[in-house]
Amino acid sequence: MIKVGIVGGTGYTGSELLRILALHPQVELKAITSRGEVGQAVADMFPALRKRVNIAFSEPTFESLKNCDLVFFATPHGVCMAQAAELVNAGIRVVDLGADFRLKNTAEFEHWYGMPHSEPALLEEAVYGLIEAHRNAVRTARLVGLAGCYPTSVQLALKPLLTAGAPLIDETTIIADCKSGVSGAGRKATVGSLFSEASENFKAYSVSGHRHLPEIEQGLEMISGRKTHVTFTPHLVPMVRGILATVYVKLNDAGQATDLQALYEGHYRDEYFVDVMPKGSLPETKHVRGSNFVRLAIHRPQGRDTAVILATIDNLVKGAAGQAVQAMNAMFGLPEHLGLEQLPLAP
Amino acid sequence: MIKVGIVGGTGYTGSELLRILALHPQVELKAITSRGEVGQAVADMFPALRKRVNIAFSEPTFESLKNCDLVFFATPHGVCMAQAAELVNAGIRVVDLGADFRLKNTAEFEHWYGMPHSEPALLEEAVYGLIEAHRNAVRTARLVGLAGCYPTSVQLALKPLLTAGAPLIDETTIIADCKSGVSGAGRKATVGSLFSEASENFKAYSVSGHRHLPEIEQGLEMISGRKTHVTFTPHLVPMVRGILATVYVKLNDAGQATDLQALYEGHYRDEYFVDVMPKGSLPETKHVRGSNFVRLAIHRPQGRDTAVILATIDNLVKGAAGQAVQAMNAMFGLPEHLGLEQLPLAP
Amino acid sequence: MIKVGIVGGTGYTGSELLRILALHPQVELKAITSRGEVGQAVADMFPALRKRVNIAFSEPTFESLKNCDLVFFATPHGVCMAQAAELVNAGIRVVDLGADFRLKNTAEFEHWYGMPHSEPALLEEAVYGLIEAHRNAVRTARLVGLAGCYPTSVQLALKPLLTAGAPLIDETTIIADCKSGVSGAGRKATVGSLFSEASENFKAYSVSGHRHLPEIEQGLEMISGRKTHVTFTPHLVPMVRGILATVYVKLNDAGQATDLQALYEGHYRDEYFVDVMPKGSLPETKHVRGSNFVRLAIHRPQGRDTAVILATIDNLVKGAAGQAVQAMNAMFGLPEHLGLEQLPLAP
Amino acid sequence: MIKVGIVGGTGYTGSELLRILALHPQVELKAITSRGEVGQAVADMFPALRKRVNIAFSEPTFESLKNCDLVFFATPHGVCMAQAAELVNAGIRVVDLGADFRLKNTAEFEHWYGMPHSEPALLEEAVYGLIEAHRNAVRTARLVGLAGCYPTSVQLALKPLLTAGAPLIDETTIIADCKSGVSGAGRKATVGSLFSEASENFKAYSVSGHRHLPEIEQGLEMISGRKTHVTFTPHLVPMVRGILATVYVKLNDAGQATDLQALYEGHYRDEYFVDVMPKGSLPETKHVRGSNFVRLAIHRPQGRDTAVILATIDNLVKGAAGQAVQAMNAMFGLPEHLGLEQLPLAP
Repeated sequence: MIKVGIVGGTGYTGSELLRILALHPQVELKAITSRGEVGQAVADMFPALRKRVNIAFSEPTFESLKNCDLVFFATPHGVCMAQAAELVNAGIRVVDLGADFRLKNTAEFEHWYGMPHSEPALLEEAVYGLIEAHRNAVRTARLVGLAGCYPTSVQLALKPLLTAGAPLIDETTIIADCKSGVSGAGRKATVGSLFSEASENFKAYSVSGHRHLPEIEQGLEMISGRKTHVTFTPHLVPMVRGILATVYVKLNDAGQATDLQALYEGHYRDEYFVDVMPKGSLPETKHVRGSNFVRLAIHRPQGRDTAVILATIDNLVKGAAGQAVQAMNAMFGLPEHLGLEQLPLAP
Repeated sequence: MIKVGIVGGTGYTGSELLRILALHPQVELKAITSRGEVGQAVADMFPALRKRVNIAFSEPTFESLKNCDLVFFATPHGVCMAQAAELVNAGIRVVDLGADFRLKNTAEFEHWYGMPHSEPALLEEAVYGLIEAHRNAVRTARLVGLAGCYPTSVQLALKPLLTAGAPLIDETTIIADCKSGVSGAGRKATVGSLFSEASENFKAYSVSGHRHLPEIEQGLEMISGRKTHVTFTPHLVPMVRGILATVYVKLNDAGQATDLQALYEGHYRDEYFVDVMPKGSLPETKHVRGSNFVRLAIHRPQGRDTAVILATIDNLVKGAAGQAVQAMNAMFGLPEHLGLEQLPLAP
Repeated sequence: MIKVGIVGGTGYTGSELLRILALHPQVELKAITSRGEVGQAVADMFPALRKRVNIAFSEPTFESLKNCDLVFFATPHGVCMAQAAELVNAGIRVVDLGADFRLKNTAEFEHWYGMPHSEPALLEEAVYGLIEAHRNAVRTARLVGLAGCYPTSVQLALKPLLTAGAPLIDETTIIADCKSGVSGAGRKATVGSLFSEASENFKAYSVSGHRHLPEIEQGLEMISGRKTHVTFTPHLVPMVRGILATVYVKLNDAGQATDLQALYEGHYRDEYFVDVMPKGSLPETKHVRGSNFVRLAIHRPQGRDTAVILATIDNLVKGAAGQAVQAMNAMFGLPEHLGLEQLPLAP
Repeated sequence: MIKVGIVGGTGYTGSELLRILALHPQVELKAITSRGEVGQAVADMFPALRKRVNIAFSEPTFESLKNCDLVFFATPHGVCMAQAAELVNAGIRVVDLGADFRLKNTAEFEHWYGMPHSEPALLEEAVYGLIEAHRNAVRTARLVGLAGCYPTSVQLALKPLLTAGAPLIDETTIIADCKSGVSGAGRKATVGSLFSEASENFKAYSVSGHRHLPEIEQGLEMISGRKTHVTFTPHLVPMVRGILATVYVKLNDAGQATDLQALYEGHYRDEYFVDVMPKGSLPETKHVRGSNFVRLAIHRPQGRDTAVILATIDNLVKGAAGQAVQAMNAMFGLPEHLGLEQLPLAP
């Protein structure tokens, strides 16, 4: 049994970790911390977990976590950075679901997150947790900076095109028009996330620049080894869970000569969680809701030179807690899908 | 392994059975039938099941089902009635998620469902599938007429009050104000169930008389052994899954002298799926969504003589497919919760 | 032209007042105040009003309001109480959409709102703003304490039964099972009103006691002149706007002998905003959304002695801003529907 | 008073026409036809219109319409084509909200709509009803083929860039990623439009080719006089009303040197219904819901060479019924906004 701790269990990624880990056959939940809720039973805050999760929140201290084999951070940026070194040095592996260990360039981190990075050495060691792209590194990592939700969807949508040897597309004019459910904004009370604001409404946000943009470009460059430019526009959908990325790429001559459906199917043939749907398919967010699956389809409308890749994930599962458990499984030599077999909840 | 067949797999209760059974450790899915879809892969209709359910629809004939140990009917009324005898006589046990074997009085059946009952003998033998009330009979049943969704919520809300020996309430002035998500109306295309009609809208329906009314009254009388009258008003909530029953009862002197919280907790102490929440709790449909749990709370506002019982279930799980699998587990001597441990999906 | 001011324009009732008043042919909007937003253009906060509402927020002082003929308070309780006397004494009429001038009993006010009432004399003078019940008093009022949203729906649902001379129902066992959209909770950022919490969810709240309960009982007693007892259970519906009240009454012999449909139609024949729908109708919240209409239907299921009255309003219009403008029209001798003719927005 | 008829009043565009026309000060509604509902009161089908629309459905014959000055067709393609000639020849002006008179090329019409065009001469005469682009022609038209909902949003988003003299963008790599509420699919009962399918879900559809693609390209070419290529991807949003178009264009040197904000503000300065929001704005569908307004914003993320234009309309108003009434106003010399002043319903 892997002894697991969670730092920051009062948000949606924290409660989603609990939902998954509670039924994981190789996990023993040792501690869940929250500065504001010490002593409160987790199930009092999340009644959906009643009778199955019987632990209470504890202080977010090293003491609470020192008997763990692995600690998940489901916290805003800045928190994991402050605690990771002590844990890692004590031999406790860390998976950060937040943003502290994603951007390799500390100047970029500071620009987008508005604070200096206090652990540049750890950052350099940290493995970027997009497992389908960096599996071997994840397996042996002491510290994983898990990929963000949008970046997971966009990178998996593009990966087969970027790893095909010679370029197949114009890698500097990629457009990622992404749509996310409201749970992506977390469980913090803000006017913009109120039901009365978000329901029966649709909008783009952060059009001038979103924190996931540098992560996406860095991630794509790690995959391709070449410079990429992405125009990334996130949108807010009046639903709770789910991301659909609609990605537009301009095919070059090599790309136009390629059987894209075959390329994608071949590329992901052995990936348990990635489903390349048949030609002409239209993945829907409900096809993956509550599960760790990714569903993909690639189109080439009117036979022109623009290809459209559609990729859907559940932002709280493959985009956060599920991908974190998948990483844990890989880090401890378990089958990656252990505890993650749940089928999507539809309708 | 129990060899299982499903008749009528193209609706929401059928697809929900598939979602649950696909991960059930003791079930082998042998056949799923649909007259209109013979030969089509189930996963083409329900992409959420892709890669995990690899069966195709077959003809709804005895031939398709004859190697099963148990057959679920996820069909409109009239269908199970026409096929049940042949199956039962061949030693195949049957669980009808539809309405053919719920109402014991054939005149009542004909009145509410507009067709004569063709199998009165089987109807007499059939066990009413509200497991928490009729467990022993379910275990040995050849044919189970599963309780409907609203009746499950209302009966479980009232059962402790009705089995307490002497009456605690006025059993002829019960009010059941029930609210259901739209999936209760099934996957049939009707204007009233369109998104543009049901979203951002709320209404009562079938106020003058709903088919679940005689089932509720019959069920309560089976529990109490006494005549009951219920005013039952169903409402349509702009959500997909979930029922909340708000039940009002007038306490008599004995009822007013009873510790209702203790009564409920004691009554359901050993029920895996029934959660009596702490005093003052307010169960929400999302606390059970996607799971087979029932969550209950009992209130006595202002200390007056009216008690309010709140009960919530997922109409597609405890109100249909989950309860059906729970019945199957009981019928085959398995732990009732096998394959039904999934925690609610929240948020 | 009536010169109008609004105190507290940053919530939903405030913005709804703006939406209505901007097109009112006899209103000139002089001032809208908000302590926190002084100087900001209203249309910057509410882009839906761009190009049509060109006013900015001003200080919530007497100075800002002194040139008005009438001031609406769209504020939490406690605010109007503190400012009303100065305005009324200056000859400015006041309509409070909040709760300060609803409950006539100061002890009740203090019990339910947790603060003493500082203006008992004004409270005694204030007219309870349910216009269909207290029209003449509203017309000449200096200060109106507008009816709350739930109380409006419940009182209009019951009024014909209570004003019919001799009692027609058991007035001490009334049950009001009410359902409201989330905008009823206002524009304040709280976790419970987040989209991810409220969407795809349904729950009862304040079952043990809601502030509208004493207002409902007081209001019904003002209508009938007799003591009433109501069990009032509010529920939260995953929609933005709308209230449906499902009201259960036990008919006495006189009530059972009455043609209830004729009673209701006769009672409301001359009310512009109250629509008694044909026998058997099922009013939906979308039938009134965005309008000041009330739609009602009365049922007597199974011909038993319980009658079910269904009443629907838009909580932000007839339950707040629309009813406030209706009161203003009455106070200034205008047709009550002036500026309130908008038809419901459906779908 | 303009005497108006509506053919096909049982869908959402038909009922929306009724909602608007019922309050239009210069319109007298003479007839509304529906083959299937002859004799039924309109308000029985649409209770939101009760007490304000007192007309019944009549036969869809010339006889029913011959006393009208103008007839709106709110019908599927093929219907207007069959009736328009008789009306126009009788001096009755026609506005087709359907698709019969949009595509000028009959071969294109046949390709996309699967039927031959029976009125090529009328088609040549018909004016394309995007008023902001073709105002003068609309004013004198006998027959208007109203712009579709998506095409309205995309053309208004791009028009300032296309009419600026020399090209500002690469006109062959335009991407229009569009999102629509479910009412765009109409009031027809189909599984895909059911609440349980569309709620809590998001998907792209018709990615390989949508009927609005040729209309968009034709419309842009009418504006610019040059060939354009658009990749158009429609998506289904779990809301009832609203379209947001996110349009990506690659700026050429001239475009990069242009003050795009000033260009847009100048271009639309005199348009009542088009609101160019301040720099950095993010239009939301709820900012226009229920109104005839268009709200636009233009961004240039990261200062790169891709511009992003956001445009939002209510698909049933500016995308259909409202634009139709705007056309009628123009055709009869009335102010275009007469009867269309309603402010958006938010929240």
